[in-house]
Amino acid sequence: MTMISSSSNPAIKQIRALRQRKERERSGFFFIEGIRLVVEAIQLAAPVELLIVAPELLNSPLARELIEAQTHAGHPCLEVTAAVFRSISSRDGPQGLGALVRQRWETIDEVCLDNETGIGWVALDTVQDPGNLGTILRTCDAVGGTGVILLDHTTDPYDPTALRASMGAIFAQRLVRASFTEFATWKRRHNYTLIGASGGAEYDYQAVSYRTPLVILMGSERQGLTIEQQALCDKVVSIPMAGRSDSLNLAVATGIMLYEVFNQQRRGG
Amino acid sequence: MTMISSSSNPAIKQIRALRQRKERERSGFFFIEGIRLVVEAIQLAAPVELLIVAPELLNSPLARELIEAQTHAGHPCLEVTAAVFRSISSRDGPQGLGALVRQRWETIDEVCLDNETGIGWVALDTVQDPGNLGTILRTCDAVGGTGVILLDHTTDPYDPTALRASMGAIFAQRLVRASFTEFATWKRRHNYTLIGASGGAEYDYQAVSYRTPLVILMGSERQGLTIEQQALCDKVVSIPMAGRSDSLNLAVATGIMLYEVFNQQRRGG
Repeated sequence: MTMISSSSNPAIKQIRALRQRKERERSGFFFIEGIRLVVEAIQLAAPVELLIVAPELLNSPLARELIEAQTHAGHPCLEVTAAVFRSISSRDGPQGLGALVRQRWETIDEVCLDNETGIGWVALDTVQDPGNLGTILRTCDAVGGTGVILLDHTTDPYDPTALRASMGAIFAQRLVRASFTEFATWKRRHNYTLIGASGGAEYDYQAVSYRTPLVILMGSERQGLTIEQQALCDKVVSIPMAGRSDSLNLAVATGIMLYEVFNQQRRGG
Repeated sequence: MTMISSSSNPAIKQIRALRQRKERERSGFFFIEGIRLVVEAIQLAAPVELLIVAPELLNSPLARELIEAQTHAGHPCLEVTAAVFRSISSRDGPQGLGALVRQRWETIDEVCLDNETGIGWVALDTVQDPGNLGTILRTCDAVGGTGVILLDHTTDPYDPTALRASMGAIFAQRLVRASFTEFATWKRRHNYTLIGASGGAEYDYQAVSYRTPLVILMGSERQGLTIEQQALCDKVVSIPMAGRSDSLNLAVATGIMLYEVFNQQRRGG
Protein backbone atom coordinates (compact mmCIF):
# COMPACT_ATOMS: atom_id res chain seq x y z
CA MET A 1 0.00 0.00 0.00
CA THR A 2 1.32 3.45 -0.95
CA MET A 3 1.08 6.12 1.69
CA ILE A 4 -0.38 9.47 0.67
CA SER A 5 1.87 12.27 1.85
CA SER A 6 0.37 15.23 0.00
CA SER A 7 -2.64 17.01 1.38
CA SER A 8 -3.44 18.24 -2.13
CA ASN A 9 -3.94 14.66 -3.35
CA PRO A 10 -7.33 14.61 -5.16
CA ALA A 11 -8.82 11.96 -2.82
CA ILE A 12 -7.81 14.01 0.21
CA LYS A 13 -9.16 17.22 -1.31
CA GLN A 14 -12.43 15.42 -1.98
CA ILE A 15 -12.69 14.30 1.66
CA ARG A 16 -11.95 17.82 2.89
CA ALA A 17 -14.64 19.19 0.58
CA LEU A 18 -17.19 17.06 2.46
CA ARG A 19 -17.13 19.61 5.27
CA GLN A 20 -19.44 21.60 3.00
CA ARG A 21 -23.05 20.51 2.96
CA LYS A 22 -23.29 21.24 -0.77
CA GLU A 23 -20.50 18.79 -1.51
CA ARG A 24 -21.99 16.14 0.81
CA GLU A 25 -25.31 16.44 -1.01
CA ARG A 26 -23.73 16.41 -4.44
CA SER A 27 -21.63 13.32 -3.76
CA GLY A 28 -23.90 11.43 -1.38
CA PHE A 29 -20.94 10.74 0.93
CA PHE A 30 -19.85 11.93 4.37
CA PHE A 31 -16.67 11.62 6.41
CA ILE A 32 -16.48 10.29 9.95
CA GLU A 33 -13.47 10.14 12.23
CA GLY A 34 -12.52 8.65 15.56
CA ILE A 35 -12.12 5.02 16.57
CA ARG A 36 -15.44 4.71 18.33
CA LEU A 37 -17.51 6.12 15.47
CA VAL A 38 -15.72 4.11 12.77
CA VAL A 39 -16.07 0.90 14.80
CA GLU A 40 -19.77 1.56 15.25
CA ALA A 41 -20.21 2.27 11.54
CA ILE A 42 -18.68 -1.12 10.72
CA GLN A 43 -20.59 -2.96 13.44
CA LEU A 44 -23.87 -1.46 12.30
CA ALA A 45 -23.11 -2.37 8.66
CA ALA A 46 -23.02 1.21 7.43
CA PRO A 47 -21.95 1.48 3.76
CA VAL A 48 -18.28 2.32 4.43
CA GLU A 49 -16.59 2.97 1.07
CA LEU A 50 -13.08 3.63 2.25
CA LEU A 51 -11.10 3.62 5.49
CA ILE A 52 -8.52 6.36 5.98
CA VAL A 53 -5.69 5.48 8.34
CA ALA A 54 -2.70 7.42 9.63
CA PRO A 55 -0.52 4.66 11.18
CA GLU A 56 1.65 7.26 12.96
CA LEU A 57 -1.36 8.52 14.91
CA LEU A 58 -3.18 5.27 15.51
CA ASN A 59 -2.12 3.72 18.81
CA SER A 60 -5.12 1.55 19.61
CA PRO A 61 -4.53 -2.21 19.13
CA LEU A 62 -8.31 -2.66 18.76
CA ALA A 63 -8.34 -0.21 15.84
CA ARG A 64 -5.32 -1.89 14.22
CA GLU A 65 -7.03 -5.27 14.40
CA LEU A 66 -10.19 -3.83 12.93
CA ILE A 67 -8.32 -2.38 9.97
CA GLU A 68 -6.51 -5.64 9.38
CA ALA A 69 -9.80 -7.55 9.38
CA GLN A 70 -11.38 -5.01 7.04
CA THR A 71 -8.55 -4.99 4.52
CA HIS A 72 -8.37 -8.79 4.72
CA ALA A 73 -12.08 -8.89 3.81
CA GLY A 74 -11.30 -6.79 0.75
CA HIS A 75 -12.44 -3.38 1.97
CA PRO A 76 -10.32 -0.57 0.59
CA CYS A 77 -8.08 1.34 2.96
CA LEU A 78 -6.06 4.50 2.32
CA GLU A 79 -2.87 5.09 4.30
CA VAL A 80 -1.93 8.70 4.89
CA THR A 81 0.74 10.58 6.83
CA ALA A 82 -0.10 12.27 10.12
CA ALA A 83 0.06 15.68 8.41
CA VAL A 84 -2.40 14.62 5.73
CA PHE A 85 -4.76 13.17 8.33
CA ARG A 86 -4.67 16.41 10.29
CA SER A 87 -5.62 18.28 7.10
CA ILE A 88 -8.90 16.32 6.86
CA SER A 89 -9.61 16.13 10.60
CA SER A 90 -11.77 18.63 12.47
CA ARG A 91 -10.43 17.58 15.86
CA ASP A 92 -7.68 18.91 18.07
CA GLY A 93 -6.13 15.51 18.71
CA PRO A 94 -7.02 13.30 15.73
CA GLN A 95 -6.92 9.56 16.42
CA GLY A 96 -5.73 8.64 12.93
CA LEU A 97 -8.78 6.67 11.83
CA GLY A 98 -11.53 7.92 9.54
CA ALA A 99 -13.96 6.59 6.98
CA LEU A 100 -15.76 7.73 3.89
CA VAL A 101 -19.34 6.53 4.19
CA ARG A 102 -22.29 6.60 1.81
CA GLN A 103 -25.37 8.49 3.07
CA ARG A 104 -28.55 6.49 3.51
CA TRP A 105 -31.86 8.18 2.84
CA GLU A 106 -35.36 6.88 2.38
CA THR A 107 -38.31 8.62 0.82
CA ILE A 108 -41.44 9.11 2.90
CA ASP A 109 -43.32 6.64 0.67
CA GLU A 110 -40.98 3.86 1.76
CA VAL A 111 -41.99 4.35 5.38
CA CYS A 112 -44.76 2.11 6.63
CA LEU A 113 -45.50 2.06 10.36
CA ASP A 114 -47.99 -0.81 10.34
CA ASN A 115 -45.56 -3.50 11.42
CA GLU A 116 -43.29 -1.29 13.47
CA THR A 117 -41.67 -2.74 16.55
CA GLY A 118 -40.11 0.52 17.76
CA ILE A 119 -41.87 3.16 19.83
CA GLY A 120 -42.36 5.41 16.82
CA TRP A 121 -40.81 8.12 14.68
CA VAL A 122 -39.87 11.74 15.21
CA ALA A 123 -40.54 14.39 12.55
CA LEU A 124 -38.55 17.60 12.80
CA ASP A 125 -39.36 20.84 11.04
CA THR A 126 -36.61 23.26 10.04
CA VAL A 127 -34.25 22.40 12.89
CA GLN A 128 -31.28 24.76 12.61
CA ASP A 129 -28.67 23.46 15.00
CA PRO A 130 -26.77 20.31 13.91
CA GLY A 131 -25.88 19.60 17.56
CA ASN A 132 -29.57 19.48 18.43
CA LEU A 133 -30.29 17.19 15.47
CA GLY A 134 -27.50 14.78 16.43
CA THR A 135 -28.63 14.75 20.06
CA ILE A 136 -32.22 14.00 19.00
CA LEU A 137 -30.98 11.05 16.92
CA ARG A 138 -29.09 9.78 19.98
CA THR A 139 -32.15 10.01 22.23
CA CYS A 140 -34.40 8.47 19.59
CA ASP A 141 -32.01 5.54 19.41
CA ALA A 142 -31.84 5.24 23.21
CA VAL A 143 -35.62 4.79 23.58
CA GLY A 144 -35.94 2.40 20.66
CA GLY A 145 -37.40 4.86 18.15
CA THR A 146 -37.20 3.85 14.51
CA GLY A 147 -36.10 6.97 12.71
CA VAL A 148 -36.32 10.67 12.07
CA ILE A 149 -38.21 12.47 9.31
CA LEU A 150 -36.53 15.75 8.40
CA LEU A 151 -38.98 18.27 7.01
CA ASP A 152 -38.28 21.21 4.73
CA HIS A 153 -35.12 23.11 5.67
CA THR A 154 -33.89 20.94 8.52
CA THR A 155 -30.11 20.93 8.94
CA ASP A 156 -27.96 18.05 7.67
CA PRO A 157 -27.61 14.99 9.95
CA TYR A 158 -24.32 14.26 8.17
CA ASP A 159 -22.83 17.57 9.33
CA PRO A 160 -19.71 16.86 11.46
CA THR A 161 -21.30 18.44 14.57
CA ALA A 162 -24.48 16.39 14.15
CA LEU A 163 -22.42 13.22 13.65
CA ARG A 164 -20.44 13.84 16.84
CA ALA A 165 -23.60 14.56 18.86
CA SER A 166 -25.38 11.46 17.52
CA MET A 167 -22.75 9.17 19.08
CA GLY A 168 -23.26 6.54 16.40
CA ALA A 169 -27.07 6.75 16.38
CA ILE A 170 -26.76 8.07 12.82
CA PHE A 171 -26.04 4.46 11.80
CA ALA A 172 -28.90 2.97 13.80
CA GLN A 173 -31.76 5.32 12.93
CA ARG A 174 -33.62 5.46 9.62
CA LEU A 175 -33.53 8.86 7.92
CA VAL A 176 -36.17 10.40 5.70
CA ARG A 177 -36.23 13.80 4.04
CA ALA A 178 -39.55 15.22 2.88
CA SER A 179 -41.35 18.48 2.29
CA PHE A 180 -44.14 19.28 4.73
CA THR A 181 -46.63 18.78 1.89
CA GLU A 182 -45.35 15.27 1.15
CA PHE A 183 -45.39 14.48 4.86
CA ALA A 184 -48.98 15.73 5.23
CA THR A 185 -50.14 13.62 2.25
CA TRP A 186 -48.42 10.53 3.69
CA LYS A 187 -49.89 11.06 7.18
CA ARG A 188 -53.43 11.50 5.82
CA ARG A 189 -53.19 8.53 3.47
CA HIS A 190 -52.12 6.13 6.24
CA ASN A 191 -54.01 7.87 9.04
CA TYR A 192 -51.08 7.52 11.44
CA THR A 193 -51.32 9.26 14.80
CA LEU A 194 -49.38 12.52 14.79
CA ILE A 195 -48.76 14.30 18.10
CA GLY A 196 -47.19 17.76 17.96
CA ALA A 197 -45.47 19.56 20.81
CA SER A 198 -45.95 23.30 21.16
CA GLY A 199 -45.68 25.75 24.04
CA GLY A 200 -49.10 26.79 25.32
CA ALA A 201 -51.00 23.93 23.63
CA GLU A 202 -54.22 22.65 25.18
CA TYR A 203 -53.16 19.21 26.39
CA ASP A 204 -50.51 18.46 29.01
CA TYR A 205 -48.01 16.07 27.39
CA GLN A 206 -48.62 13.56 30.18
CA ALA A 207 -52.41 13.58 29.72
CA VAL A 208 -52.26 11.93 26.29
CA SER A 209 -51.93 8.23 25.41
CA TYR A 210 -49.15 7.54 22.97
CA ARG A 211 -49.92 4.43 20.95
CA THR A 212 -48.13 3.09 17.90
CA PRO A 213 -48.14 3.70 14.96
CA LEU A 214 -47.00 7.09 16.19
CA VAL A 215 -45.13 10.13 14.90
CA ILE A 216 -44.06 12.95 17.24
CA LEU A 217 -43.76 16.31 15.48
CA MET A 218 -41.37 18.96 16.84
CA GLY A 219 -41.04 22.47 15.42
CA SER A 220 -37.98 24.63 14.85
CA GLU A 221 -35.87 26.14 17.64
CA ARG A 222 -37.20 29.63 16.99
CA GLN A 223 -40.75 29.25 15.75
CA GLY A 224 -42.08 26.02 17.19
CA LEU A 225 -44.96 24.54 15.18
CA THR A 226 -46.83 26.69 12.67
CA ILE A 227 -50.65 26.85 12.62
CA GLU A 228 -50.64 24.65 9.51
CA GLN A 229 -48.47 22.02 11.22
CA GLN A 230 -50.63 22.05 14.34
CA ALA A 231 -53.72 21.58 12.17
CA LEU A 232 -52.26 18.35 10.75
CA CYS A 233 -51.71 16.90 14.25
CA ASP A 234 -54.25 14.63 15.93
CA LYS A 235 -53.34 16.36 19.17
CA VAL A 236 -50.98 19.15 20.14
CA VAL A 237 -49.49 18.88 23.60
CA SER A 238 -47.37 21.16 25.72
CA ILE A 239 -44.64 20.49 28.23
CA PRO A 240 -45.50 22.57 31.32
CA MET A 241 -43.01 25.02 32.79
CA ALA A 242 -42.88 26.72 36.15
CA GLY A 243 -40.05 29.22 35.95
CA ARG A 244 -39.22 32.36 34.09
CA SER A 245 -38.36 30.50 30.84
CA ASP A 246 -41.08 30.01 28.29
CA SER A 247 -39.25 27.43 26.24
CA LEU A 248 -36.86 24.50 26.44
CA ASN A 249 -33.91 23.59 24.29
CA LEU A 250 -35.29 21.59 21.34
CA ALA A 251 -33.20 18.46 22.03
CA VAL A 252 -34.26 18.52 25.69
CA ALA A 253 -37.95 19.02 24.78
CA THR A 254 -37.76 16.14 22.27
CA GLY A 255 -36.07 13.98 24.92
CA ILE A 256 -38.85 14.69 27.41
CA MET A 257 -41.52 13.85 24.81
CA LEU A 258 -39.76 10.63 23.78
CA TYR A 259 -39.32 9.50 27.38
CA GLU A 260 -43.03 10.05 28.05
CA VAL A 261 -43.86 7.82 25.06
CA PHE A 262 -41.25 5.27 26.12
CA ASN A 263 -42.38 5.28 29.78
CA GLN A 264 -46.03 4.78 28.83
CA GLN A 265 -45.14 1.94 26.49
CA ARG A 266 -42.84 0.17 28.94
CA ARG A 267 -45.61 0.38 31.59
CA GLY A 268 -47.88 -1.20 28.96
CA GLY A 269 -49.93 2.03 28.85
CA MET B 1 -20.84 61.00 24.91
CA THR B 2 -17.66 60.28 22.92
CA MET B 3 -17.78 57.38 20.52
CA ILE B 4 -14.97 54.85 20.66
CA SER B 5 -13.66 54.21 17.17
CA SER B 6 -10.48 52.26 17.92
CA SER B 7 -10.63 48.56 18.60
CA SER B 8 -7.34 48.85 20.49
CA ASN B 9 -8.96 51.14 23.08
CA PRO B 10 -8.10 49.64 26.53
CA ALA B 11 -11.76 49.17 27.54
CA ILE B 12 -12.44 47.32 24.28
CA LYS B 13 -9.32 45.19 24.65
CA GLN B 14 -10.46 44.31 28.17
CA ILE B 15 -13.90 43.22 26.92
CA ARG B 16 -12.30 41.11 24.17
CA ALA B 17 -10.04 39.49 26.74
CA LEU B 18 -13.16 38.19 28.55
CA ARG B 19 -13.46 35.50 25.87
CA GLN B 20 -10.73 33.75 27.89
CA ARG B 21 -11.90 31.96 30.99
CA LYS B 22 -8.73 32.99 32.83
CA GLU B 23 -9.51 36.65 32.29
CA ARG B 24 -13.16 36.19 33.29
CA GLU B 25 -12.05 34.56 36.53
CA ARG B 26 -9.38 37.15 37.24
CA SER B 27 -11.73 40.11 36.69
CA GLY B 28 -15.02 38.64 37.92
CA PHE B 29 -16.80 40.03 34.84
CA PHE B 30 -18.35 38.59 31.71
CA PHE B 31 -19.65 40.02 28.45
CA ILE B 32 -23.09 39.41 27.00
CA GLU B 33 -24.47 40.53 23.69
CA GLY B 34 -27.78 40.62 21.87
CA ILE B 35 -30.92 42.60 22.63
CA ARG B 36 -32.82 39.73 24.24
CA LEU B 37 -30.04 38.76 26.63
CA VAL B 38 -29.22 42.33 27.68
CA VAL B 39 -32.92 43.10 28.25
CA GLU B 40 -33.23 40.00 30.41
CA ALA B 41 -30.13 40.91 32.39
CA ILE B 42 -31.64 44.30 33.21
CA GLN B 43 -35.10 42.90 33.95
CA LEU B 44 -33.65 40.28 36.28
CA ALA B 45 -31.54 42.92 38.07
CA ALA B 46 -28.21 41.39 37.08
CA PRO B 47 -25.22 43.56 38.12
CA VAL B 48 -24.69 45.27 34.75
CA GLU B 49 -21.63 47.52 35.03
CA LEU B 50 -21.60 48.99 31.56
CA LEU B 51 -23.72 48.93 28.42
CA ILE B 52 -21.89 48.85 25.09
CA VAL B 53 -23.86 50.25 22.18
CA ALA B 54 -23.12 50.59 18.47
CA PRO B 55 -25.84 53.01 17.29
CA GLU B 56 -25.12 52.18 13.63
CA LEU B 57 -26.03 48.53 14.21
CA LEU B 58 -28.90 48.97 16.64
CA ASN B 59 -32.20 49.18 14.80
CA SER B 60 -34.63 48.06 17.49
CA PRO B 61 -36.75 50.90 18.96
CA LEU B 62 -37.24 48.77 22.12
CA ALA B 63 -33.47 48.57 22.60
CA ARG B 64 -33.05 52.31 22.02
CA GLU B 65 -35.68 53.07 24.66
CA LEU B 66 -34.04 50.71 27.09
CA ILE B 67 -30.66 52.40 26.66
CA GLU B 68 -32.23 55.82 27.11
CA ALA B 69 -33.93 54.73 30.33
CA GLN B 70 -30.71 53.18 31.60
CA THR B 71 -28.50 56.17 30.88
CA HIS B 72 -31.22 58.44 32.31
CA ALA B 73 -31.08 56.41 35.53
CA GLY B 74 -27.34 57.02 35.66
CA HIS B 75 -26.06 53.69 34.35
CA PRO B 76 -22.89 54.08 32.30
CA CYS B 77 -23.04 53.42 28.58
CA LEU B 78 -20.19 53.23 26.07
CA GLU B 79 -20.84 54.15 22.46
CA VAL B 80 -18.70 52.41 19.87
CA THR B 81 -18.53 52.27 16.08
CA ALA B 82 -19.88 49.26 14.20
CA ALA B 83 -16.30 48.12 13.48
CA VAL B 84 -15.38 48.23 17.18
CA PHE B 85 -18.54 46.34 18.14
CA ARG B 86 -17.74 43.65 15.58
CA SER B 87 -14.29 43.30 17.15
CA ILE B 88 -15.85 42.32 20.51
CA SER B 89 -18.76 40.32 19.12
CA SER B 90 -18.69 36.58 18.58
CA ARG B 91 -21.70 36.62 16.27
CA ASP B 92 -22.07 36.75 12.52
CA GLY B 93 -24.65 39.52 12.55
CA PRO B 94 -24.09 41.51 15.76
CA GLN B 95 -27.12 43.49 16.96
CA GLY B 96 -25.05 46.36 18.37
CA LEU B 97 -25.96 45.93 22.03
CA GLY B 98 -23.79 44.33 24.68
CA ALA B 99 -23.14 44.59 28.39
CA LEU B 100 -20.35 44.04 30.84
CA VAL B 101 -21.81 42.17 33.80
CA ARG B 102 -20.40 41.16 37.17
CA GLN B 103 -20.40 37.42 37.91
CA ARG B 104 -22.47 36.25 40.85
CA TRP B 105 -21.25 33.29 42.84
CA GLU B 106 -22.21 31.88 46.22
CA THR B 107 -20.25 29.52 48.41
CA ILE B 108 -21.82 26.21 49.35
CA ASP B 109 -22.11 27.36 52.98
CA GLU B 110 -24.49 30.12 51.93
CA VAL B 111 -26.91 27.55 50.52
CA CYS B 112 -29.68 26.43 52.84
CA LEU B 113 -32.49 24.33 51.41
CA ASP B 114 -34.72 24.34 54.48
CA ASN B 115 -37.05 27.11 53.36
CA GLU B 116 -36.76 26.46 49.64
CA THR B 117 -39.77 27.07 47.48
CA GLY B 118 -38.23 25.69 44.26
CA ILE B 119 -38.16 22.02 43.26
CA GLY B 120 -34.50 21.67 44.24
CA TRP B 121 -30.94 22.07 43.06
CA VAL B 122 -28.74 20.34 40.50
CA ALA B 123 -25.11 19.49 41.25
CA LEU B 124 -22.86 18.83 38.25
CA ASP B 125 -19.49 17.15 38.37
CA THR B 126 -16.79 18.01 35.82
CA VAL B 127 -19.15 18.90 33.01
CA GLN B 128 -16.99 19.65 29.95
CA ASP B 129 -19.29 21.15 27.38
CA PRO B 130 -20.40 24.77 27.95
CA GLY B 131 -23.42 24.20 25.68
CA ASN B 132 -24.57 21.37 27.95
CA LEU B 133 -24.08 23.52 31.05
CA GLY B 134 -26.07 26.43 29.57
CA THR B 135 -28.85 24.08 28.46
CA ILE B 136 -29.02 22.56 31.96
CA LEU B 137 -29.37 26.05 33.48
CA ARG B 138 -32.21 26.73 31.04
CA THR B 139 -34.07 23.53 31.95
CA CYS B 140 -33.48 24.07 35.66
CA ASP B 141 -35.05 27.50 35.32
CA ALA B 142 -37.98 26.13 33.30
CA VAL B 143 -39.01 23.66 36.02
CA GLY B 144 -38.55 26.12 38.88
CA GLY B 145 -35.25 24.79 40.17
CA THR B 146 -33.28 27.12 42.41
CA GLY B 147 -29.72 26.82 41.22
CA VAL B 148 -26.78 24.76 40.08
CA ILE B 149 -23.78 23.62 42.12
CA LEU B 150 -20.68 23.23 39.95
CA LEU B 151 -18.28 20.69 41.36
CA ASP B 152 -14.56 20.43 40.77
CA HIS B 153 -13.56 21.04 37.15
CA THR B 154 -16.93 21.91 35.69
CA THR B 155 -16.78 24.31 32.75
CA ASP B 156 -17.56 28.02 33.13
CA PRO B 157 -21.26 29.07 33.02
CA TYR B 158 -20.06 32.52 31.89
CA ASP B 159 -18.47 31.06 28.75
CA PRO B 160 -20.12 32.67 25.65
CA THR B 161 -21.48 29.31 24.47
CA ALA B 162 -22.96 28.54 27.89
CA LEU B 163 -24.50 32.01 28.07
CA ARG B 164 -26.13 31.59 24.67
CA ALA B 165 -27.50 28.15 25.56
CA SER B 166 -28.85 29.33 28.93
CA MET B 167 -31.20 31.79 27.19
CA GLY B 168 -31.13 34.18 30.13
CA ALA B 169 -31.44 31.49 32.81
CA ILE B 170 -27.93 32.46 33.90
CA PHE B 171 -29.54 35.52 35.52
CA ALA B 172 -32.36 33.59 37.17
CA GLN B 173 -30.48 30.63 38.67
CA ARG B 174 -28.21 30.74 41.72
CA LEU B 175 -24.66 29.52 41.06
CA VAL B 176 -22.32 27.81 43.48
CA ARG B 177 -18.82 26.48 42.90
CA ALA B 178 -17.43 23.91 45.32
CA SER B 179 -15.01 21.02 45.50
CA PHE B 180 -16.56 17.58 45.86
CA THR B 181 -15.14 17.42 49.40
CA GLU B 182 -16.84 20.70 50.41
CA PHE B 183 -20.05 19.50 48.80
CA ALA B 184 -19.92 16.18 50.67
CA THR B 185 -19.33 17.94 54.00
CA TRP B 186 -22.26 20.29 53.36
CA LYS B 187 -24.60 17.46 52.34
CA ARG B 188 -23.75 15.38 55.42
CA ARG B 189 -24.03 18.32 57.81
CA HIS B 190 -27.54 19.25 56.63
CA ASN B 191 -28.61 15.73 55.72
CA TYR B 192 -30.22 16.85 52.49
CA THR B 193 -31.52 14.21 50.10
CA LEU B 194 -29.07 13.61 47.28
CA ILE B 195 -30.18 11.54 44.28
CA GLY B 196 -27.54 10.64 41.71
CA ALA B 197 -28.17 9.50 38.15
CA SER B 198 -25.94 6.80 36.69
CA GLY B 199 -26.33 4.29 33.88
CA GLY B 200 -26.97 0.79 35.20
CA ALA B 201 -27.92 1.92 38.73
CA GLU B 202 -30.29 -0.19 40.80
CA TYR B 203 -33.39 2.04 40.91
CA ASP B 204 -35.44 3.14 37.92
CA TYR B 205 -35.61 6.95 38.03
CA GLN B 206 -39.40 6.78 38.07
CA ALA B 207 -39.53 4.40 41.05
CA VAL B 208 -38.15 6.96 43.51
CA SER B 209 -39.98 9.75 45.36
CA TYR B 210 -38.32 13.12 44.94
CA ARG B 211 -39.09 15.32 47.93
CA THR B 212 -37.56 18.65 48.84
CA PRO B 213 -35.02 19.58 50.16
CA LEU B 214 -33.46 17.82 47.20
CA VAL B 215 -30.25 17.86 45.20
CA ILE B 216 -29.91 15.91 41.92
CA LEU B 217 -26.31 14.89 41.16
CA MET B 218 -25.21 14.36 37.56
CA GLY B 219 -21.75 13.13 36.52
CA SER B 220 -19.51 14.22 33.67
CA GLU B 221 -20.25 13.53 29.98
CA ARG B 222 -17.57 10.85 29.75
CA GLN B 223 -17.37 9.19 33.13
CA GLY B 224 -20.77 9.56 34.78
CA LEU B 225 -20.65 9.36 38.58
CA THR B 226 -17.61 7.93 40.33
CA ILE B 227 -17.91 5.27 43.05
CA GLU B 228 -17.17 7.92 45.67
CA GLN B 229 -19.90 10.20 44.34
CA GLN B 230 -22.40 7.35 44.23
CA ALA B 231 -21.55 6.48 47.84
CA LEU B 232 -22.53 9.99 48.95
CA CYS B 233 -25.98 9.69 47.34
CA ASP B 234 -29.04 8.56 49.26
CA LYS B 235 -30.11 6.75 46.12
CA VAL B 236 -28.62 6.28 42.67
CA VAL B 237 -31.14 5.94 39.87
CA SER B 238 -30.87 5.11 36.20
CA ILE B 239 -32.81 6.26 33.19
CA PRO B 240 -33.72 3.09 31.27
CA MET B 241 -32.83 2.68 27.61
CA ALA B 242 -34.09 0.31 24.97
CA GLY B 243 -31.91 0.84 21.94
CA ARG B 244 -28.31 0.38 20.96
CA SER B 245 -27.14 3.48 22.87
CA ASP B 246 -25.96 3.04 26.42
CA SER B 247 -25.99 6.72 27.32
CA LEU B 248 -27.86 9.96 26.76
CA ASN B 249 -26.55 13.44 26.17
CA LEU B 250 -25.95 14.98 29.61
CA ALA B 251 -28.31 17.93 29.11
CA VAL B 252 -31.05 15.56 27.90
CA ALA B 253 -30.51 13.18 30.84
CA THR B 254 -30.62 16.09 33.29
CA GLY B 255 -33.80 17.36 31.61
CA ILE B 256 -35.44 13.95 31.98
CA MET B 257 -34.46 13.77 35.68
CA LEU B 258 -35.69 17.33 36.36
CA TYR B 259 -39.00 16.70 34.63
CA GLU B 260 -39.57 13.57 36.71
CA VAL B 261 -39.02 15.63 39.88
CA PHE B 262 -41.22 18.44 38.55
CA ASN B 263 -43.98 16.06 37.40
CA GLN B 264 -44.07 14.29 40.78
CA GLN B 265 -44.20 17.60 42.63
CA ARG B 266 -46.91 19.12 40.44
CA ARG B 267 -49.01 15.97 40.94
CA GLY B 268 -48.46 16.49 44.67
CA GLY B 269 -46.43 13.26 44.80
